[in-house]
Amino acid sequence: MTTPNEPDVLDTIAPSDSAADEVAVSDRPWEELSRLAEQGDAERLEEFLSELSTTDQALALSRLDEVHRVQVLEGLDAEDAADLIAALPEVQAAEAIASLEPDTAAAIVHELPSDEQADVLGDLNDQQAAAILDVLPVIEADAARQLASYEDDVAGGMMVLEMLRFTPDMTVADVIAELNSNAEIYSDFDVRYAYVCEQDGSLVGVLPMQNLLFVRRGSKLRDLMITEPISVPDTTPLDELIELFDAHHFLGVPVVDHDGRLKGVLHREAVNYEETRAAESDYLKSQGIVGGEELRSMPLWLRARRRLSWLSINILLNIGAAAVIAYFQETLQAVIALAVFLPIISDMSGCSGNQAVAVSMRELSLGLVRPSEVFRVWWKEVSVGLINGAVLGLLVAICAVIFDGNGYLGLVVGVALFANTIVAVSIGGVVPLVLKRFGFDPAVASGPLLTTVTDMCGFFLVLGLATLLLSRLVA
Amino acid sequence: MTTPNEPDVLDTIAPSDSAADEVAVSDRPWEELSRLAEQGDAERLEEFLSELSTTDQALALSRLDEVHRVQVLEGLDAEDAADLIAALPEVQAAEAIASLEPDTAAAIVHELPSDEQADVLGDLNDQQAAAILDVLPVIEADAARQLASYEDDVAGGMMVLEMLRFTPDMTVADVIAELNSNAEIYSDFDVRYAYVCEQDGSLVGVLPMQNLLFVRRGSKLRDLMITEPISVPDTTPLDELIELFDAHHFLGVPVVDHDGRLKGVLHREAVNYEETRAAESDYLKSQGIVGGEELRSMPLWLRARRRLSWLSINILLNIGAAAVIAYFQETLQAVIALAVFLPIISDMSGCSGNQAVAVSMRELSLGLVRPSEVFRVWWKEVSVGLINGAVLGLLVAICAVIFDGNGYLGLVVGVALFANTIVAVSIGGVVPLVLKRFGFDPAVASGPLLTTVTDMCGFFLVLGLATLLLSRLVA
Repeated sequence: MTTPNEPDVLDTIAPSDSAADEVAVSDRPWEELSRLAEQGDAERLEEFLSELSTTDQALALSRLDEVHRVQVLEGLDAEDAADLIAALPEVQAAEAIASLEPDTAAAIVHELPSDEQADVLGDLNDQQAAAILDVLPVIEADAARQLASYEDDVAGGMMVLEMLRFTPDMTVADVIAELNSNAEIYSDFDVRYAYVCEQDGSLVGVLPMQNLLFVRRGSKLRDLMITEPISVPDTTPLDELIELFDAHHFLGVPVVDHDGRLKGVLHREAVNYEETRAAESDYLKSQGIVGGEELRSMPLWLRARRRLSWLSINILLNIGAAAVIAYFQETLQAVIALAVFLPIISDMSGCSGNQAVAVSMRELSLGLVRPSEVFRVWWKEVSVGLINGAVLGLLVAICAVIFDGNGYLGLVVGVALFANTIVAVSIGGVVPLVLKRFGFDPAVASGPLLTTVTDMCGFFLVLGLATLLLSRLVA
Repeated sequence: MTTPNEPDVLDTIAPSDSAADEVAVSDRPWEELSRLAEQGDAERLEEFLSELSTTDQALALSRLDEVHRVQVLEGLDAEDAADLIAALPEVQAAEAIASLEPDTAAAIVHELPSDEQADVLGDLNDQQAAAILDVLPVIEADAARQLASYEDDVAGGMMVLEMLRFTPDMTVADVIAELNSNAEIYSDFDVRYAYVCEQDGSLVGVLPMQNLLFVRRGSKLRDLMITEPISVPDTTPLDELIELFDAHHFLGVPVVDHDGRLKGVLHREAVNYEETRAAESDYLKSQGIVGGEELRSMPLWLRARRRLSWLSINILLNIGAAAVIAYFQETLQAVIALAVFLPIISDMSGCSGNQAVAVSMRELSLGLVRPSEVFRVWWKEVSVGLINGAVLGLLVAICAVIFDGNGYLGLVVGVALFANTIVAVSIGGVVPLVLKRFGFDPAVASGPLLTTVTDMCGFFLVLGLATLLLSRLVA
């Protein structure tokens, strides 16, 4: 997937500026793409796509209706179609493959690198995937099935199968001959490292290929290879892989099964990609995008339903906060000015709490806090909460006095916001740790939990204090 | 920074499992680190640190007070201290360097790769940076000044200076001899590609080193190199670099100045790193973490002040929404049940709008929508808003009727939430595009703008409708 060799370096000689000019000329590339797809001229279609940047290829294809999209993919030869599929976001890639006949789909899937094959097949439903696997060559289908059986975020799900693999008794001359005679096959491989395995497949060494420059051609790999190489089990989770690649400068690490047999190679880039995806999907999930991904090219009903599933949980939680207000209706009726300040208390506490959530999420992802360190985080947040609560409480108190002329109203809303800011940052800081510790996804659940508790507590503080001081407030 | 060669592959032969065990044993590594720092035993200090994962090294160092942190960094030899500095998040690394004497600091900075040198020096204040640069060797200081002069997110700010660089008339034998005789220097370099430059520094070719395996030793680089290689100007921004690396499989690309002279090499990994950092910092900024980074190891007053700067803008915006309620106080007093539903309308509209913001941010970052396509996004959001608004409106109307028994109250809050959901998704979808188009950071400003407008509009809808139907509501 990320291997450098001449074809790649050469694949565009045109300076990137000229590509940028092309894009500026065609502001709606999907219209031209539709037209070319209808004409079915494979050559012009390919030429047009090659002028677009990867981003604009994805943009253009995603704007086509299904009929035109199928025409484009069928119109291209399978290799070009595979490049196009690889440019799409994962959900769109699977959707595009699903809309093709199994034969066409299999021809395109055949051209994808092994890890992308697995991602696309994994996103199809079982029936669609089986139809494509039936058409693929048996060995390739077995490999794809095997890769697709892993979760996306473990070593096995991120590795590629394309790798140089030799036995310890081969000589340097054997290796060079093999590379020369199968140059076509190896052109897509990462050729910086070769992996040395015994006949039973067990990994016994790693060989940096550039070292072969400095040795005699009769030397055996057994004597050149680095023995006892670091490898990772195929089930290693993303967290540990990020840490491994942080700690070492490798560009790739061999992946083995529980018997130490070489299964594939995991490239640094694949780990980086999953890490970025996890960060992006955390943001989306925290904003109520269920599943961590939504594109506006998805069907309307799917988008609406997924968003609603989150909203309907929130409306239930909101009723809890509303109930607090309902309980204090008489106080509110007596001092209607309180109603003006309730949304301020709710919103400001939410903002303070969300800041604390964000910092906890950040520190968790950097490993700078452990999920068990609840007390430490709570204390750090209370310190900030005392300062910020005092400032915000004072501000809102001044507003209340200006608005209403009654110092007691200022006292009530000021004290309530002060206290509730401390509550909000405490909960916001601690909740992600607790959720993580008990195996829940902090990105999804922290926000609604925070909002519910701070709203209920904030309304209770304002209206409870007001009830205590009612005689002063109505006077 | 990410170059693979034997020292790296070999730098831990111990399987990763055993490292994990160590960590479990020492649950508070910073306590042991403090103790060892006080004893000042460099060897035991180094041994202890080498047993920790990179994450735990960063965790342990970040928990020390300044005195102990200085003791640790002074206790280690410069190379080990540099490894430790490289493990820290960027802001912490700069802080740790700043607390050292210039001589010690310069010795550590000297051991960092050129891009990390530049990052650290760029994060120091001018005086601190100048003190360190004065002590560094002149050539290195000049290079570091030059790198630090670039913004972090352009090609020049992400490139490294460590690269193989030859002239076109050198032979393969010359290259091999050079690599062998300066093996020490090149051990930290990326040796997969060599760059071929004329005497005046202008880049004329790229040479994949593994190709040297297949050619005669007397061949000149001029005849082996790939001519007219792709390069990027040093001022190329991150967006374009992400697109370039998406479109091509290179692991690195040469960086040139405006005269085509080779300045450095930009590795794919550096682009990936900045991309991840941008995604994480977007999330933090959207939650009100000014500057996109906060760690709880930062000084309390800094943390409180930065959070407050965001909160105080929000409280001002909140007053706008509160003013709408104040304007309709009489209606509210007459129908106090409305006060129960105001926070629900505000919160649910905020949730719906934030979902739309998140999807727009996602599509913008994937390049699937252009900032000019306001109408398209608006239409896509209105479609979702009609469905979700209807469902949420109906739900809240049912709640109101159950709570109050008055059908008109249900009508008022239901219609208001229906209409305000459409407003919220429209604004949430469109605002990031408009902000981006006019050069503002959508991650920072979208949330507060959205909340303010949807709150004001939501309160106006509920209370305005209630005023129109006042006779029905009080009856």
